[in-house]
Amino acid sequence: MKIAIMGFGVVGGGVGEIISTTQASLRKRCGEEIEIAKILDLRDFPDSKFKCFTKDFNDILNDPEIGLVVEVMGGTKPAYEFTKQLLLAGKHVVTSNKELVAKHGTELLKIAKDKNINYLFEASVGGGIPIIRPLYSSLVSNELTDIIGILNGTTNYILTQMIKNGATFEAALKGAQENGYAEKDPTADVEGYDTCRKIAILASLAFGKAVDSEKIETEGITKITLEDVEYAAEFGGVIKLVGMTDRAENGVYARVCPVILKKDHPLAGIDDVFNGILVRGEGLGDVMFYGRGAGSLPTASAVVSDVIDIVKHKHKHIELGWTEGEEGYLRDANEQSFRFYVRLSGKKSADFCREGFNVITLDGEKYANEFAIFTPEMTGYEFEEFKKAELSGCDILGSIRLVTE
Amino acid sequence: MKIAIMGFGVVGGGVGEIISTTQASLRKRCGEEIEIAKILDLRDFPDSKFKCFTKDFNDILNDPEIGLVVEVMGGTKPAYEFTKQLLLAGKHVVTSNKELVAKHGTELLKIAKDKNINYLFEASVGGGIPIIRPLYSSLVSNELTDIIGILNGTTNYILTQMIKNGATFEAALKGAQENGYAEKDPTADVEGYDTCRKIAILASLAFGKAVDSEKIETEGITKITLEDVEYAAEFGGVIKLVGMTDRAENGVYARVCPVILKKDHPLAGIDDVFNGILVRGEGLGDVMFYGRGAGSLPTASAVVSDVIDIVKHKHKHIELGWTEGEEGYLRDANEQSFRFYVRLSGKKSADFCREGFNVITLDGEKYANEFAIFTPEMTGYEFEEFKKAELSGCDILGSIRLVTE
Repeated sequence: MKIAIMGFGVVGGGVGEIISTTQASLRKRCGEEIEIAKILDLRDFPDSKFKCFTKDFNDILNDPEIGLVVEVMGGTKPAYEFTKQLLLAGKHVVTSNKELVAKHGTELLKIAKDKNINYLFEASVGGGIPIIRPLYSSLVSNELTDIIGILNGTTNYILTQMIKNGATFEAALKGAQENGYAEKDPTADVEGYDTCRKIAILASLAFGKAVDSEKIETEGITKITLEDVEYAAEFGGVIKLVGMTDRAENGVYARVCPVILKKDHPLAGIDDVFNGILVRGEGLGDVMFYGRGAGSLPTASAVVSDVIDIVKHKHKHIELGWTEGEEGYLRDANEQSFRFYVRLSGKKSADFCREGFNVITLDGEKYANEFAIFTPEMTGYEFEEFKKAELSGCDILGSIRLVTE
Repeated sequence: MKIAIMGFGVVGGGVGEIISTTQASLRKRCGEEIEIAKILDLRDFPDSKFKCFTKDFNDILNDPEIGLVVEVMGGTKPAYEFTKQLLLAGKHVVTSNKELVAKHGTELLKIAKDKNINYLFEASVGGGIPIIRPLYSSLVSNELTDIIGILNGTTNYILTQMIKNGATFEAALKGAQENGYAEKDPTADVEGYDTCRKIAILASLAFGKAVDSEKIETEGITKITLEDVEYAAEFGGVIKLVGMTDRAENGVYARVCPVILKKDHPLAGIDDVFNGILVRGEGLGDVMFYGRGAGSLPTASAVVSDVIDIVKHKHKHIELGWTEGEEGYLRDANEQSFRFYVRLSGKKSADFCREGFNVITLDGEKYANEFAIFTPEMTGYEFEEFKKAELSGCDILGSIRLVTE
């Protein structure tokens, strides 16, 4: 099988490395040789051991010998057009491009199905953690009920620094950038967009219909303060940025937001750049997947696992069970009920010492004029009503959902 | 596809339940109906909704319409003979029977390959946790280096009771039996035999050659005392029963034994009846799988995932990469190095206050005449030498390996 790689960055380089250094074991696994015939990148790599670079996409599209293309360029332009043309030309495509899969997965999977070829994307979520394939193979016999995941290593690193070392958000972000865990422009990570794309992919696979990532309510971690971290700790919890999705009647819920997890929650101990994904099904109970969610070789190894799967299924479309979505399938996130943590001042804590509430006060002068409450469970709409009725006139210094299960 | 179920116990009943109640989604996943045509069990089930029971294996073997058989009888007699005959007759077999897979997997897989059919066993390890399929699909592009797992829920429940509630081994075992987590004869669990079969299966898949479970050094938890639990806690660790296997030059290591895990080890927080399996590969880093390792519906759902996979691959043998083992491939476990915890009396603790050692003393009259040490890293042979040279004449009250990574 001759293949091409589009994009020779961190992941593309890793894919080249793994395929070229594990030829023997790949041959054993696939029953045939995998040869890297072309690498598309606009940059020059004069020192690379690979000598098959091209800057022209048509060199790949029009090469009848290339049967599979690894797209690890990132972004949707020109990755979307390229992928579509390749699939229409009957070439299998493997990708780590979560943005593209979240945005155009439904269409690209439909083309792959029509052409009886494959479009696979194990590397798009969780780096080297096998999570996509278990959803469409191992766990398919379960009626899955919900998924909650720490899906972004950058923000988890930042929150861990805040929780364990008392770093401010700004200092922790700077540290993450210095360590290469965050990009110069960290928006996609800290605003939750990366997590949003990933939970959209997981929801689309787990529940069978496409969920539009652009309609998922998404909140990042830029407003989280060390004071929130302290209140959460006093309550016995930690703050984590999660993507979550739940099956509902006639649809699904999905959202991305920081939440407080009690310390005995399976995801509470997932620290630093690690990812953790908790999948639940009727009968199945909790199944959790944990590992390094990014990095050249873990992500590349996930890409290569898809390459191998395709070489073994060259003439067969692998059905992922991701079909077209429909209006109203993604339900209004404000219908979902949570308990809410609210940090506030300008009110007496005694007002909330009643059934269903927890009131947390902290020692120290800094905390003299404020406290935090955990409300009873309520929908997003009810929470807005509650704020109007009981918190008008006070300063709301922070507000985070609590996830207990 | 017409299928048969052999053994209508806890798992077999769950398989029947799932297949009969999720027909629509199964049809969507497989592209065809799955019909339970025969159920083999020597018992009578007059109240069952199924009406296709038989007591005669030949009713299944000789039914040309049955293309797939679920073997969930357990044990090797008559499961081995039955499975072999079914495979030779060209029928796919799916099983949860770890004893049979560990003992005869190599032979049965070879027959399946020769016949271009499948013998799958996702449910044999970790109940509903997808671990077998990731090893032969998602993780295949990695050179895996080692696996360590808490693979037996019964012993993990017992140890958790000892650690968290101060129950003695005997009391915790009794509690496990009362809760239905342990069988009347708990030997296979508490002596580590169950874990041994599972780590043999994982090692055979992960490293490509069969590992004979009967040659794996296996030690259970019957000698673990509450005093050991206390010393481990003082050291910042917990005692867990693990199966572990490591790739070595020209072979593999494998063993089953109680170990002390430092509290920040990913497996240290896996409590009660949960299982956790940590897989490591070059580049990949740590990937962990966690979930309920047993139970009717989780295990049955893993069985059904294999059934679905086979219906989708009816005419194709799925290569698992498990080939025949060879003499000397499983290496002498005593060559492997560990730090050792030793609880002893009849010696002065000051004798061990030197580089590479940790000495732990506990308060209280009960501990007045004893203490524990953690040795530097040494092989099993070196440990025997060490005991002769430095511990002769003292009472060794307990001894456990320490696993730090």
